[in-house]
Amino acid sequence: VLRLADVGEQAWIARLTRRLARSGRGDRRVLLGPGDDAAAVRPGGRPLLLTVDTLVEGVHFRRRWLSPAALGRRAFAVNASDVAAMGGRPAFALLALEAPGSLPAADLDAVAAGVDAAARRAGARLVGGNLSAGARLAITLALVGVVPGRLVTRAGARPGDRLWLTGTLGGAGLGVRRGRLAAVPLRIAAGVLLARVASAMIDVSDGLVQDLGHVCRASGVGAEIELARLPVAPAVRRALKAGAPRFAAAAGEDYELLAAVPPARERVLAPLRHRLGCRLTCVGRIVAGRPAVRVLDARGRAVRLPRGGFDHFARRA
Amino acid sequence: VLRLADVGEQAWIARLTRRLARSGRGDRRVLLGPGDDAAAVRPGGRPLLLTVDTLVEGVHFRRRWLSPAALGRRAFAVNASDVAAMGGRPAFALLALEAPGSLPAADLDAVAAGVDAAARRAGARLVGGNLSAGARLAITLALVGVVPGRLVTRAGARPGDRLWLTGTLGGAGLGVRRGRLAAVPLRIAAGVLLARVASAMIDVSDGLVQDLGHVCRASGVGAEIELARLPVAPAVRRALKAGAPRFAAAAGEDYELLAAVPPARERVLAPLRHRLGCRLTCVGRIVAGRPAVRVLDARGRAVRLPRGGFDHFARRA
Repeated sequence: VLRLADVGEQAWIARLTRRLARSGRGDRRVLLGPGDDAAAVRPGGRPLLLTVDTLVEGVHFRRRWLSPAALGRRAFAVNASDVAAMGGRPAFALLALEAPGSLPAADLDAVAAGVDAAARRAGARLVGGNLSAGARLAITLALVGVVPGRLVTRAGARPGDRLWLTGTLGGAGLGVRRGRLAAVPLRIAAGVLLARVASAMIDVSDGLVQDLGHVCRASGVGAEIELARLPVAPAVRRALKAGAPRFAAAAGEDYELLAAVPPARERVLAPLRHRLGCRLTCVGRIVAGRPAVRVLDARGRAVRLPRGGFDHFARRA
Repeated sequence: VLRLADVGEQAWIARLTRRLARSGRGDRRVLLGPGDDAAAVRPGGRPLLLTVDTLVEGVHFRRRWLSPAALGRRAFAVNASDVAAMGGRPAFALLALEAPGSLPAADLDAVAAGVDAAARRAGARLVGGNLSAGARLAITLALVGVVPGRLVTRAGARPGDRLWLTGTLGGAGLGVRRGRLAAVPLRIAAGVLLARVASAMIDVSDGLVQDLGHVCRASGVGAEIELARLPVAPAVRRALKAGAPRFAAAAGEDYELLAAVPPARERVLAPLRHRLGCRLTCVGRIVAGRPAVRVLDARGRAVRLPRGGFDHFARRA
């Protein structure tokens, strides 16, 4: 029998996505089905984005790492990041909780309050949910977003586009090494603005190289990252010195936005930069060729990185 | 410390719902927040319904009770039932799965295929999802519905309205006693048609008396059920003889629709009945008074029923 542990999460999802994509053709309401950061649907008016993500105790977090309110904020933020990566704004959230009966009720209150507060801060509302008994705490959040302007997918990058990254890299990954989870940044305004000029966009949750790989495969292009250009978080520079850029390129959990921007649109991008509410750095470019990411050192030589990313079911060595 | 087991699922949800309802005022996009079968939002065009529900192994099902495909169909159907209970049609589904690595991948395939098939049969699409590691199988489905006609909530029932029920009662509850879960009926066409005339509507998942109680509280009315009128499932009549109607009034899992219809609209209801695709039976009426459900025997005397409904965290006697 082929078990999940044999197939792995990514492979299972890729297989299901292909199947759903094939069978989803012909429904004009579905602008974009599975396989991107969120699904886009148009039941009538403007496109809506639909996405869902689960945080499971012992898998995605340990209770001593985060307060319950911070968990709620995180559950919202990781979904908001997917919506932002398509140029959307979070609009409506549903919260499905599993919890053991021994959990203090105040803790679950705090999780929901954290979701509610994070949603409001992002201009969204928590409009419903569900609670089930479960052996461990699990927080599933489904998010509906609206697209105020352009809808940007992973699939539009073209050779010659430059790659722009919000914020800094590596800080969250360093936190995980030290047994804590950093807050997920909300790049919603930045996402809407970048969507005006981006040919493709993704949020960097599994590590820059791994997530850029998704853009490459969806767009049918290659990409190059210049290690020397990476906006490495100061704490990472301090802790890892010369190894910091390599760590930052592969570490996950940063939830920054990565956008490919065609050269012709860079003069539109320039005046937007001070309105993003965060740093924006050019970290590389899209190139022709097979869908792969090359990481270059300061002298332009290709660098090998440890394999990054996270698979729930992959067997650890 | 007040624990979940002390508060109970219903009380915790009621408390959160009140809090969210208070804080949700002032957002004109939210037509209906938490507290009904689904949330209704209008980001632009027609109202959308948003709902979410989770099936947890060992809580809502045991794997030997249902095939994986039947589990997927059930996850879709229980959410579709909430959408139907408001006069909506399912449109878009998101599937969030938790599963142990030891689960055969084919089983998870079958769950997703079951969701997909059920969605298509109902005119909806599975547009996205997520997979996480988890100690036990848990299936969370978030559903977006559209409202083609009237949106019907739990809150509109008025004294004098008669109560109409689709299908039959008790069959699913009898199945649970025998260690199996009946298929959840899809009452989508019936829901849209009943919404034309109903003052209030709900799906009967926790038992007729318990769910009618929700309508009474939301509408500020009382209700009377006549045991002799209940459309008891034939298998229940055979198994429980004279006790069958009382069992049917309290047993859960039937997922039929219960609609309150004002007398003035009964002449509109009559010609719709043969288009519902199922039986429709008058089982009682809405009365003035405190929000409570009275169950009457054939002579009009009040009958006591065992307390029905299911609470994930209530301590069993």
